[in-house]
Amino acid sequence: MPLTPDQIAEIEAARSAPQMTLRATSPGMEQHLYRAHPVLDHGFIRVIDYMGDDAAIVQAARVSYGAGTKHVQNDDGLIRYLMRHWHSTPFEMCEVKLHVKLPVFVARQWIRHRTANVNEYSARYSILDREFYIPAPEHLAAQSVVNNQGRGAVLQGEEAARVLDLLKSDANRAYDNYEAMLSQEGQQGLARELARMNLPANIYTQWYWKVDLHNLFHFLRLRADPHAQYEIRVYAEAIAACVKDWVPLAYAAFEDYRMGGVTLSSKAIDVLKRRLKGEAVSQETSGMSKGEWREFSDVWG
Amino acid sequence: MPLTPDQIAEIEAARSAPQMTLRATSPGMEQHLYRAHPVLDHGFIRVIDYMGDDAAIVQAARVSYGAGTKHVQNDDGLIRYLMRHWHSTPFEMCEVKLHVKLPVFVARQWIRHRTANVNEYSARYSILDREFYIPAPEHLAAQSVVNNQGRGAVLQGEEAARVLDLLKSDANRAYDNYEAMLSQEGQQGLARELARMNLPANIYTQWYWKVDLHNLFHFLRLRADPHAQYEIRVYAEAIAACVKDWVPLAYAAFEDYRMGGVTLSSKAIDVLKRRLKGEAVSQETSGMSKGEWREFSDVWG
Amino acid sequence: MPLTPDQIAEIEAARSAPQMTLRATSPGMEQHLYRAHPVLDHGFIRVIDYMGDDAAIVQAARVSYGAGTKHVQNDDGLIRYLMRHWHSTPFEMCEVKLHVKLPVFVARQWIRHRTANVNEYSARYSILDREFYIPAPEHLAAQSVVNNQGRGAVLQGEEAARVLDLLKSDANRAYDNYEAMLSQEGQQGLARELARMNLPANIYTQWYWKVDLHNLFHFLRLRADPHAQYEIRVYAEAIAACVKDWVPLAYAAFEDYRMGGVTLSSKAIDVLKRRLKGEAVSQETSGMSKGEWREFSDVWG
Amino acid sequence: MPLTPDQIAEIEAARSAPQMTLRATSPGMEQHLYRAHPVLDHGFIRVIDYMGDDAAIVQAARVSYGAGTKHVQNDDGLIRYLMRHWHSTPFEMCEVKLHVKLPVFVARQWIRHRTANVNEYSARYSILDREFYIPAPEHLAAQSVVNNQGRGAVLQGEEAARVLDLLKSDANRAYDNYEAMLSQEGQQGLARELARMNLPANIYTQWYWKVDLHNLFHFLRLRADPHAQYEIRVYAEAIAACVKDWVPLAYAAFEDYRMGGVTLSSKAIDVLKRRLKGEAVSQETSGMSKGEWREFSDVWG
Repeated sequence: MPLTPDQIAEIEAARSAPQMTLRATSPGMEQHLYRAHPVLDHGFIRVIDYMGDDAAIVQAARVSYGAGTKHVQNDDGLIRYLMRHWHSTPFEMCEVKLHVKLPVFVARQWIRHRTANVNEYSARYSILDREFYIPAPEHLAAQSVVNNQGRGAVLQGEEAARVLDLLKSDANRAYDNYEAMLSQEGQQGLARELARMNLPANIYTQWYWKVDLHNLFHFLRLRADPHAQYEIRVYAEAIAACVKDWVPLAYAAFEDYRMGGVTLSSKAIDVLKRRLKGEAVSQETSGMSKGEWREFSDVWG
Repeated sequence: MPLTPDQIAEIEAARSAPQMTLRATSPGMEQHLYRAHPVLDHGFIRVIDYMGDDAAIVQAARVSYGAGTKHVQNDDGLIRYLMRHWHSTPFEMCEVKLHVKLPVFVARQWIRHRTANVNEYSARYSILDREFYIPAPEHLAAQSVVNNQGRGAVLQGEEAARVLDLLKSDANRAYDNYEAMLSQEGQQGLARELARMNLPANIYTQWYWKVDLHNLFHFLRLRADPHAQYEIRVYAEAIAACVKDWVPLAYAAFEDYRMGGVTLSSKAIDVLKRRLKGEAVSQETSGMSKGEWREFSDVWG
Repeated sequence: MPLTPDQIAEIEAARSAPQMTLRATSPGMEQHLYRAHPVLDHGFIRVIDYMGDDAAIVQAARVSYGAGTKHVQNDDGLIRYLMRHWHSTPFEMCEVKLHVKLPVFVARQWIRHRTANVNEYSARYSILDREFYIPAPEHLAAQSVVNNQGRGAVLQGEEAARVLDLLKSDANRAYDNYEAMLSQEGQQGLARELARMNLPANIYTQWYWKVDLHNLFHFLRLRADPHAQYEIRVYAEAIAACVKDWVPLAYAAFEDYRMGGVTLSSKAIDVLKRRLKGEAVSQETSGMSKGEWREFSDVWG
Repeated sequence: MPLTPDQIAEIEAARSAPQMTLRATSPGMEQHLYRAHPVLDHGFIRVIDYMGDDAAIVQAARVSYGAGTKHVQNDDGLIRYLMRHWHSTPFEMCEVKLHVKLPVFVARQWIRHRTANVNEYSARYSILDREFYIPAPEHLAAQSVVNNQGRGAVLQGEEAARVLDLLKSDANRAYDNYEAMLSQEGQQGLARELARMNLPANIYTQWYWKVDLHNLFHFLRLRADPHAQYEIRVYAEAIAACVKDWVPLAYAAFEDYRMGGVTLSSKAIDVLKRRLKGEAVSQETSGMSKGEWREFSDVWG
């Protein structure tokens, strides 16, 4: 259970004080504000603030294109056009701020998306809580034998039990010793900025993360992808569910053109055109490497 | 008068439909929403949307520093501390979106601030209006004789009249010919993306500009500075007046530490310390170049 | 002829002083260093400096993937893999610095690519030269009747002559008056930062532009595209020719996966799969809008 | 000892193959290329590549200011002028690429500087080495009693011994269990992307880090500062020593105006002016808070 009673009370308090505003509002997003969506065993995402809605995307595009866009019949058509043609700036006009609680090894991957604003809890300044990510049994997977960067079958029986036991006992021992080093009872107590180095990468941290919709879509495309590591993918999926309620038209276009889309190389285009003419094309006659061909035939057979 | 009746009606309509929101609101900023603040002869700035307030800055900082910040007595003290110590990320948690109408030569300077989102009216796609910036007589200044990048005295009499006449007649002729080249009456009509090249840099363009508060402060420090060109400074000043109403605590800290502050080199520190001990220090004994000394004595005598 | 004798002498001098270095060098790029590649009537691009080569991309990727990448047989295969899977960071390890002379209206479009470093000639500080872009007759095109943002047929006869005459005479008059306002003979002379507002958007400016290879590929994909405006496309093509000599493997992958590739939406994938099974699909049964279908059938018939 | 014989051989090989180049070269930086400068117990920084030198900064500035800069007598004066007036773009024209080996908790702080390019060793893809940062006895400091984010006295005697023992034994046990979970002998072996979560924050990682000189100076100002954590400060100092050899004029200006400079608020300016006139000013009459006054009097007495 990721939230303390204090936190729940704080959320309820925040949700009990609606204000009047003249700004664009998204009714779907108002439902999410401040509420914690649980992720993994102790994590969550919460929407803290947002700016803009589907209409704001359209409005920004119409500033660019002026009267010329009036012939586009509706907002949906314009948003789909913008997405299809990789127009990024109108989507940058929406912004969202999230509060995220997540394991450090997930945070390390996440932070590589540089076009965002971050305020992270400082373990140099404050003391971290004793909360560690321990995978659920169904997510305790073996190393993939075909992909260096992937998972294979779920671990079973004794091996699974042994791994869980090691993860739990190492985390607890590391935290016990973190506390012992920090303690000022009968000793000086090690500096927080040093003691934190003893903590493993499955400890939870938290941050405020603010990003515009264009860069968020880029994040979601990479991190909600089936090839992303499970532990970051569940965060991406929880965020995606909020985005769908926030900007439903933009999200639908994103799903069609990005999440559900594929990019074809000029070689792949050539193969498909030959097939459409009835030719049987194999890897040998495709001009593609074996790796490319495997990825191509995963989609096209 | 920069606004058409249609635009005024649109603003009134936008301001007549308040909504309920659970988000942080800034009463001072709500007063500005959508309203046009005139700048120069045909320009304006309008606040279209904003995210966050003074409390959002404090909230983000407390996420970083955890319980450790509780000893800071109040929001004002914490915001001043953050500003004094160049903490940038809490200020990045606020965001503002502006609609700006401005001459192209101002836009060219403005766009050099890269950490912002922009949707500009496209003269490739649409036709620009016949609106040009013509300086008011009191801003028609001579080239500075001491500063390559500055202005001297205001032009007088015949010279002033001649300049105004040239600026007006060239702008009008350029626009007449822009229209003549575009016209499809009795001819094909030149492509818009080509015809626009005939228009001078004092024609007005417009854009949506979205930026976070940290980067906006950086913009204001450079562009509301007395050394900035007058024509961009008046935009910075109009924006600054809105920011002051939006985040009054952060703006006050910005005024004290940035706008009203100075940076001293190690040489300048040394000179001031010697003076405080009663020593008379001249340029020759200061270790500074003549240019540095002139700038130093402008502040310190 | 864009270069003065002084400039040519400067280039020859720069090229006559080879130095020893331990850095990665690209023989293909060394041939381009400092030399001006003419673009449009007075413009050019020149490579001023570069960092990295194909091997540097591979080296950075192997740092990320460690010993695990040893099974990839060769550099070419790894670079193609990185490009295919949208890995951006290894390509960011290469950097190039260009000197570009270009019309202001092209510069205004170019600068929208924010992830680059720029030093532009300052017309606030210095006086611009009398050099304007005047389109060659074969590039003097009419407004497209199907695309607001495009060109149609080339203008002919009297209309073409009239347009050329207007562009030339307006440019010259604007420059004459720019000089007249600046002049300090018998008058004070208007400030440079004001006088420049009289100059049209086809005047030439120049800048140093520094960008990493990943962001340069993004620029080239958008600006060397057939839908880009001709006047920026020719710059993109001139740069692309240098990139091809600089990092031939990366450039070949870019051509195959980006320039020559297409992105399919989930709807488009569905249509192609139905066609591969022998079904005849029309716009009505495709689920696509008319616009999407037109773009789809441009590629797939 | 951070380097293996293989790595040393690789460095020697890289340094034994000088090439001819027409690019700007920095003799001081050539001496550093590829060589490892040891930092902490297992870390290092190595310069892998660089672009530009002091002259490149000047060259870019002269592009901006044109003939107008000719009156500046020399490169040194111009570079100092640019630094004094916060001109950032000419410094962005230089770029450096480093190979850094560093503990994860240092990497987490470092990565917050977003304006850089990074390729990090992937523990999702490959297996990390058994190398942990264990502080030298003289750097094993107690928590500061005055600063939540700082260190106090060095730990002594039994407490120091106990801390060192805990850090070492926890690191080794965590690594033993990391290996045990990964092992494929008699079991499937846990996925690498999961096993890594057991490793503490003092394990070493490595990355390629590429940054321009302006942003590097910003990094150095914050991280080579006495208030920065010791473990990142030593990296900043090692890099600063290379920068000094690379661009000696720019580095000297940086030292004078940034590292050795201070920023005064308008209140602080007022206090100094009153003191210069002979007035005795105390905290109570200064208008400053106690915290501000303490920081002010640290510099000015």
